[in-house]
Amino acid sequence: MGWLIGLDWGTTSLRAMLFDGEGGVHETRHRAWGIRQLPQGGFEAALSSICEGWPSCPVLAAGMVGSQQGWHEAPYVDTPADVHALAAHLVTVAAADGRRIHIIPGVRDGVGPNVMRGEETQLIGVLDAQPRLAEGTPLVLPGTHSKWVQLYRRRITGFTTMMTGELYGLLRTHSILGTGLPDARAAARHHESFDGGVRAARASGSAGVLTRLFSARTLVLEGKLDAAAVPDYLSGLLIGEEWRAALAAGWLDRGEIPVLIGDEALCLRYRRAATLFDLPDPTWIADATARGLWRIARVAGLAVDRTPPVPMELPG
Amino acid sequence: MGWLIGLDWGTTSLRAMLFDGEGGVHETRHRAWGIRQLPQGGFEAALSSICEGWPSCPVLAAGMVGSQQGWHEAPYVDTPADVHALAAHLVTVAAADGRRIHIIPGVRDGVGPNVMRGEETQLIGVLDAQPRLAEGTPLVLPGTHSKWVQLYRRRITGFTTMMTGELYGLLRTHSILGTGLPDARAAARHHESFDGGVRAARASGSAGVLTRLFSARTLVLEGKLDAAAVPDYLSGLLIGEEWRAALAAGWLDRGEIPVLIGDEALCLRYRRAATLFDLPDPTWIADATARGLWRIARVAGLAVDRTPPVPMELPG
Repeated sequence: MGWLIGLDWGTTSLRAMLFDGEGGVHETRHRAWGIRQLPQGGFEAALSSICEGWPSCPVLAAGMVGSQQGWHEAPYVDTPADVHALAAHLVTVAAADGRRIHIIPGVRDGVGPNVMRGEETQLIGVLDAQPRLAEGTPLVLPGTHSKWVQLYRRRITGFTTMMTGELYGLLRTHSILGTGLPDARAAARHHESFDGGVRAARASGSAGVLTRLFSARTLVLEGKLDAAAVPDYLSGLLIGEEWRAALAAGWLDRGEIPVLIGDEALCLRYRRAATLFDLPDPTWIADATARGLWRIARVAGLAVDRTPPVPMELPG
Repeated sequence: MGWLIGLDWGTTSLRAMLFDGEGGVHETRHRAWGIRQLPQGGFEAALSSICEGWPSCPVLAAGMVGSQQGWHEAPYVDTPADVHALAAHLVTVAAADGRRIHIIPGVRDGVGPNVMRGEETQLIGVLDAQPRLAEGTPLVLPGTHSKWVQLYRRRITGFTTMMTGELYGLLRTHSILGTGLPDARAAARHHESFDGGVRAARASGSAGVLTRLFSARTLVLEGKLDAAAVPDYLSGLLIGEEWRAALAAGWLDRGEIPVLIGDEALCLRYRRAATLFDLPDPTWIADATARGLWRIARVAGLAVDRTPPVPMELPG
């Protein structure tokens, strides 16, 4: 295979990776150009700019760039979905600068219903890296909209969504629970408060964590929780709720070892919470988007240009 | 008793009632002067202005005006709390214009912990109006922070908080679920969507409604929910969750007839949701703050000025 540019293009950020012919990432670039905060010139300008100086080669994009609010809609593929279904439903856009962008569809599960965009590419990467991943192992991709995924025979067979990260942001930024707190950037971690939040979520039983949310305020009023520790307590309440609900909904059985995929610091919080639920320590797999992009490109037969990169001439 | 001015002074609004010597409300005035949005001159100016032309008489205030962020803190009274405990712990402030303001304390329940300010006065009013209220009947005061209250022998013996109204506002205004919705003011009611939300909350079982929240987005993506109906669907999800959690937590048994207290339109939503949980139709009692203020004033021995009101001279 030749060179390939991979894009991880979400709501709040754009990451571009230049792959060499072996699937290695030659260079990575980040911009704050999520699909809701594009530079002047929109998608075209963002793409041209972030790929400046890179060779002429196919571009493969994952994420919200393929949503109704994105560059071009790539309609969802239904579960059960595998790498072949995704590769067969790429949507191709010709950019003004001559590049061809192939957008990976998201996946839809009729139960819920639920949808994902971007996570499917991570999952393909995980499956490529860990072909022995146990059938039926519950996979968790924590984030703004956490996904709980079931795989079977290398297919995405079902998944569901918890809006944990978004709820945390709403409560931290806009609710009475977040008023009067010290600057978050200056805050140290408060592990005990996080643990307290997880324990409160677990103790809420079948009533659920919404019956305990107000304690993030009353504990401060009573001097039992430092105002600076409220964000960690809230984080514990909501991540704890994710484990509680997963057990209650049967997405996870007590004996199973779940797999966490994504940002290490966030996954560490989920692991810490799992131990407080007396669950086995989850396995952690780092973000696998790059590997997923490469794998989908290979299956789709992209990246056939075998010429070495020619540096573009700079103007002037 | 003589004349009395009662204040219901919350976070977002101020309501002043002039009581005649029999406890009848002679006149009511509203201003948008909640404790976070006071006019120039602060509490003093707000009080002077809203009472302009009213007789010189005691002022009794309930609500967030007695919080740490209020005019003067009136420390919480612990459960079990009755009208005598509240009346014995009024905190008195002398205003610059010569009026004396007596602030009713809130109530604290050590379990949770939970706190209320303003609801205790409503509850005293309800107890005064309905002395035969069945012992142990669960009382619900829906709102920004809904309260579920247990009374025993005319005392507030325990209560808990659900942040239902605040969560609704956060999700409606700031979350992805609320993006791209038509103007709420122009929206008609979508009863079927509300019912759909309640049913989804009930169907979530012990996993709870946070496992279903994302459906407010995906149902729109699939054309199964009109974007204009999302607010009602969300309202159904969250009010439904309140009934689900109350049953799961044991705040309410299936056979009991709960009592709803407060705004009629909001209480109607809770009644509609209760029927979808196959619960008996709750009793509804309108806001009882005025009656509670009058009752607490009597027990505290306020309003002893028996002279008729003297109209104040207007300047100029």
